[in-house]
Amino acid sequence: MTPKNPSDSLTIITDLVLPSETNPIGNMFGGELLARMDRAASIAARRHSRRIVVTASVNHVAFSKMIPLGSVVTVEAKVSRAFSSSMEVYMDVFIEDRESGERSISNEAIYTFVAVDETGRPVRVPELIPETEVEKKRFEAALRRKQLSLVLAGKMKPSEATELKALFN
Amino acid sequence: MTPKNPSDSLTIITDLVLPSETNPIGNMFGGELLARMDRAASIAARRHSRRIVVTASVNHVAFSKMIPLGSVVTVEAKVSRAFSSSMEVYMDVFIEDRESGERSISNEAIYTFVAVDETGRPVRVPELIPETEVEKKRFEAALRRKQLSLVLAGKMKPSEATELKALFN
Amino acid sequence: MTPKNPSDSLTIITDLVLPSETNPIGNMFGGELLARMDRAASIAARRHSRRIVVTASVNHVAFSKMIPLGSVVTVEAKVSRAFSSSMEVYMDVFIEDRESGERSISNEAIYTFVAVDETGRPVRVPELIPETEVEKKRFEAALRRKQLSLVLAGKMKPSEATELKALFN
Amino acid sequence: MTPKNPSDSLTIITDLVLPSETNPIGNMFGGELLARMDRAASIAARRHSRRIVVTASVNHVAFSKMIPLGSVVTVEAKVSRAFSSSMEVYMDVFIEDRESGERSISNEAIYTFVAVDETGRPVRVPELIPETEVEKKRFEAALRRKQLSLVLAGKMKPSEATELKALFN
Amino acid sequence: MTPKNPSDSLTIITDLVLPSETNPIGNMFGGELLARMDRAASIAARRHSRRIVVTASVNHVAFSKMIPLGSVVTVEAKVSRAFSSSMEVYMDVFIEDRESGERSISNEAIYTFVAVDETGRPVRVPELIPETEVEKKRFEAALRRKQLSLVLAGKMKPSEATELKALFN
Amino acid sequence: MTPKNPSDSLTIITDLVLPSETNPIGNMFGGELLARMDRAASIAARRHSRRIVVTASVNHVAFSKMIPLGSVVTVEAKVSRAFSSSMEVYMDVFIEDRESGERSISNEAIYTFVAVDETGRPVRVPELIPETEVEKKRFEAALRRKQLSLVLAGKMKPSEATELKALFN
Repeated sequence: MTPKNPSDSLTIITDLVLPSETNPIGNMFGGELLARMDRAASIAARRHSRRIVVTASVNHVAFSKMIPLGSVVTVEAKVSRAFSSSMEVYMDVFIEDRESGERSISNEAIYTFVAVDETGRPVRVPELIPETEVEKKRFEAALRRKQLSLVLAGKMKPSEATELKALFN
Repeated sequence: MTPKNPSDSLTIITDLVLPSETNPIGNMFGGELLARMDRAASIAARRHSRRIVVTASVNHVAFSKMIPLGSVVTVEAKVSRAFSSSMEVYMDVFIEDRESGERSISNEAIYTFVAVDETGRPVRVPELIPETEVEKKRFEAALRRKQLSLVLAGKMKPSEATELKALFN
Repeated sequence: MTPKNPSDSLTIITDLVLPSETNPIGNMFGGELLARMDRAASIAARRHSRRIVVTASVNHVAFSKMIPLGSVVTVEAKVSRAFSSSMEVYMDVFIEDRESGERSISNEAIYTFVAVDETGRPVRVPELIPETEVEKKRFEAALRRKQLSLVLAGKMKPSEATELKALFN
Repeated sequence: MTPKNPSDSLTIITDLVLPSETNPIGNMFGGELLARMDRAASIAARRHSRRIVVTASVNHVAFSKMIPLGSVVTVEAKVSRAFSSSMEVYMDVFIEDRESGERSISNEAIYTFVAVDETGRPVRVPELIPETEVEKKRFEAALRRKQLSLVLAGKMKPSEATELKALFN
Repeated sequence: MTPKNPSDSLTIITDLVLPSETNPIGNMFGGELLARMDRAASIAARRHSRRIVVTASVNHVAFSKMIPLGSVVTVEAKVSRAFSSSMEVYMDVFIEDRESGERSISNEAIYTFVAVDETGRPVRVPELIPETEVEKKRFEAALRRKQLSLVLAGKMKPSEATELKALFN
Repeated sequence: MTPKNPSDSLTIITDLVLPSETNPIGNMFGGELLARMDRAASIAARRHSRRIVVTASVNHVAFSKMIPLGSVVTVEAKVSRAFSSSMEVYMDVFIEDRESGERSISNEAIYTFVAVDETGRPVRVPELIPETEVEKKRFEAALRRKQLSLVLAGKMKPSEATELKALFN
């Protein structure tokens, strides 16, 4: 399989925040954003693998900024690292101010997908080769996140998570 | 404020998986489950605090099991620890087989909410006192997760995360 | 088939009232509540029968209380009586005040379902044995309601509806 | 207020049955039809009263016929009787076969609405004068249904429900 | 195939404008109206042809009037001309004032559908015979619109569009 | 107001075709695509004007290609010409084959929006300066389309539509 670059899977969903997606103080529900990001990320993973993909895990997501009703929200998703049959997808979420047009980062989020065949069995995916500085940094950190994921799932002992141990020492 | 127990905030959403919530191989989208869990968890946090609540973060979520179309999915959410104005909510997700009636665990997930006033400013919430063995275990682990959250957000140095350091040594 | 108790089919849907579900004066549409109750009741009937179930009828439903936007609405459904292939499901609907946490009854409703096979043909369901006082009372009244249903559908002469006649004499 | 005829409030909703509205054997959920009928009936009641209207009750509804995916469903609603501030709305529901174009009755249903002002307080509505034979028959029967409704709500003693007593003797 | 009249395909969708369908100044999104009209028109085309139908094109649509939240919107669709396998559907859209009950035209719109078999191949449809003055006028103009459509799609040279040329000379 | 380029308003919505958006032969409803395009185009117009925008008209839209369930559909919208308070938005719609990754044009569409203030009154928008060859061609043609729009709305005599007359001679 020919390796691919992150830009090959770039997926953009720009959309409004509608009244049915907001809480009592007029801000977007966290759950709505999580669902939108899942759609963007799954398309990116599908573009990288050209296979059916299923969500395997969602990394820690922080909602540091409220997103008010009527905002324009842009989710930009790119595959950040490919493993044998799984892909990590990194997303940047922006909101923009209607009057100034100013764009600010609202969130970052990382989802992992597995490519499967029609019966749901994992299949191999192409390698990912990062190009820009940011892509390279995210590619490196992906291994650390994978270890954390395995530790949290009880599939790796903390003492074996060499990348993580280094972080805390 | 009178302290509360986890059972005071128990919130249950049982619902079907509909065709519009499934991917090409007939399983529930991860994003749909993330959104349902956000609604269940936000109601639990609201029951604990009796305030408006907003999603602050979503812990690492793993989707280890596919949930087929037509499944009955039950999300059970309870506040697992209260901090000054934030609450960690722990969820158990079950699916059940229609014919045998057998119930199996599909997911666990942890979301954090902040209680706010009408202007969006954080307000204090009651203390949480765990009762059962499982509740006590989750209560203890919540501190470790909070440190991990702060480290990941760049608000705490890994070297100061005493609970986490212990884990990796 | 082993008989079951009402508690075996207990199904709870707790959810918020969203803006898209409210009328011009900010209260939940009756039709939305009817649809939510249908989902809760159908899951209860499915849990009792472990079969595919279809809505057969909806008893008289009164909406005595307005349910404002942002309310937390809880529908609790339990099978109240089983006939050969049909099941009566009794629901209690509660709303709770966000600030006081006080829970008040908003509605009661009764739906009837039929268990069917994959071709839509009715199949037998297990017997229901009521346990609590309330369950026993509802079990008794179910027969009266069944007669009323048959009379209204023109399938029983009012003069033969012995349970109903007693009521009006 | 000038009296009105049932035809003044005639409201028609014709729409398809979509995949997200069907159960595992491909038929329309009862709850979806209940919600559509609520929308049709509320518009009819609003056309009669020219006020905000809220659902007060739903009469007994029987689902005798399955409505398959892709069906064209037509709900025709007309006010069948007006009381001081409430209106009974009678609906005929039809489905049609795509190939033959044949139209068959799927359901009848009766909902009651109350006209209210902006604060939710009941207001008077115009009188209804039935014209056709069917309209006159439904107008007469509405009184009997109103008594039944009051008896079921515990607001009238069965022994005082003169219209109903006559039915069972 | 027996020819049909426009009244044979008359399809009416009356429905409310809900909060989730409105823009920041409280008026119905153009896109929502376009989607509702597509559903009404497709049912009309299906009633004329008794076949599966797919949208082929949408004529120029002008939104001259804002439609506020809570409005009752009525779409009336009728086939205006049948070609070999395609049908032009003409729609009148009305909104009504709740208090005065006054009905005003909000839009006119014209969609074209093609009748197809289960494999998506075009099939013949019955001829349409207009009856009223308005129907005859619309029937005539349909040919001009068809030519415009072909010219815009680059399938007919402007110089061959005899009906259109006449218009501009 | 500083003039802008088409690239300043580029808006991309990439999303899947879900089961609830498809017709009986498994292709996307035309109406759903019309609604998605309205959302994309309105965000583009808002980015150009930084004002509230409302849909004024939809140009002729042809659906030449069926879009099957599960497709990834990308709508790319850019302002193609600005008039005093209105903006024409040109959209290219692509679908891509999951296996080959091949991208093909599904539709082109043109919507017009008006920028308004909070009371709904039109306000001036910045000038648009096209840059690429395609943008320049679309900019030129926009005038012809505006005349056609005025003629169709009965606001300009065909004989005065100089740009259009030229086309048919």
